[in-house]
Amino acid sequence: MGVTRGSSLLSEGQERSDAARNRQLLLDAAEALVREQGAEAVTMDAVAKRAGVGKGTVFRRFGNRSGLMHALLDQSEKKLQAAYMFGPPPLGPGAPAIERLVAFGRARLAGIEVEGDVLREASSNAERYSGAPYNVTKSHVALLLRQANTPGNTNLLADTLLAALDAGLVLHQHRVQGYTLEQIGDFFESLVRRVVPVDAQ
Amino acid sequence: MGVTRGSSLLSEGQERSDAARNRQLLLDAAEALVREQGAEAVTMDAVAKRAGVGKGTVFRRFGNRSGLMHALLDQSEKKLQAAYMFGPPPLGPGAPAIERLVAFGRARLAGIEVEGDVLREASSNAERYSGAPYNVTKSHVALLLRQANTPGNTNLLADTLLAALDAGLVLHQHRVQGYTLEQIGDFFESLVRRVVPVDAQ
Repeated sequence: MGVTRGSSLLSEGQERSDAARNRQLLLDAAEALVREQGAEAVTMDAVAKRAGVGKGTVFRRFGNRSGLMHALLDQSEKKLQAAYMFGPPPLGPGAPAIERLVAFGRARLAGIEVEGDVLREASSNAERYSGAPYNVTKSHVALLLRQANTPGNTNLLADTLLAALDAGLVLHQHRVQGYTLEQIGDFFESLVRRVVPVDAQ
Repeated sequence: MGVTRGSSLLSEGQERSDAARNRQLLLDAAEALVREQGAEAVTMDAVAKRAGVGKGTVFRRFGNRSGLMHALLDQSEKKLQAAYMFGPPPLGPGAPAIERLVAFGRARLAGIEVEGDVLREASSNAERYSGAPYNVTKSHVALLLRQANTPGNTNLLADTLLAALDAGLVLHQHRVQGYTLEQIGDFFESLVRRVVPVDAQ
């Protein structure tokens, strides 16, 4: 009985890790599709084909297209979080706070074409300011602002800096107004350097 | 025949001015409803009752509720535009550019509870960065930034300053996070004073 239990646990564990691997495979396929053809190319069918699995598998894993889109967003948020929390400086710990703020802006902008398209396709964005993804990122930015001894309300300032990097706004500046993401990154850097006190730089 | 024509023109003119007056009456009634009970209280029926006209008149004038909501937004935009273009300083001409920027932020915040509720109820906001209201306001802010000799990209900075005053964001800061509109105005002032060079202040 002990043996049966043990092997049942083992196969459950095996199943969970297979499931996680499959899920990651499907997300990678979806991300590649967004990158190559834009978010509108991401259908349950296209993702299944790209990953070489049946369409049913994609539905079982994500429920529907909106579920898949949210999982994609979640993944890109988590990658960025991991990079600024545990990755190498200047984005990760070990660089002065102001350099980490500048690096954060550029990292966010680098992912914005994919993320912005997915955001536009994912369902309602009404809860954006209340949700965990926004607030985890905001805490990070507000903390760096305080570490750089930024005067005034660092919470409200974190909102403003994140608003400057908002996907909808940046995609308009980039695609409609013709700014490169590098120009927008340079602007963000100059903004950060003006709001943070000189003695922190 | 000349007389007939003349009197026909006269009555057409009379009709147009009656129409404009009726339209204004209905918009004032709708604005009062938003102010007293929030945007969800604005139904075609409620506006008709408040203005003392038949419901059919409201439908003839605005088509549907979304049309009425857009007309309300348009009106509040135009009031603000008139104030910063032709009104008294510091919002209007005659004050230093930086003081006009600060006054602009406070004026925008003063109207944001009404405007934000209406925005939330009005239909899709997808075209916000391409539309005339956004761009008229943005030109004003960018011009003041240039008049204050602000270095760097004043177009991108105007986007950021307007993003800090975005109705959705400000209503979250005010209603969910508990900041007063005065605190948000003070923050906006401190932001403006940091991004504009000291010699302009």
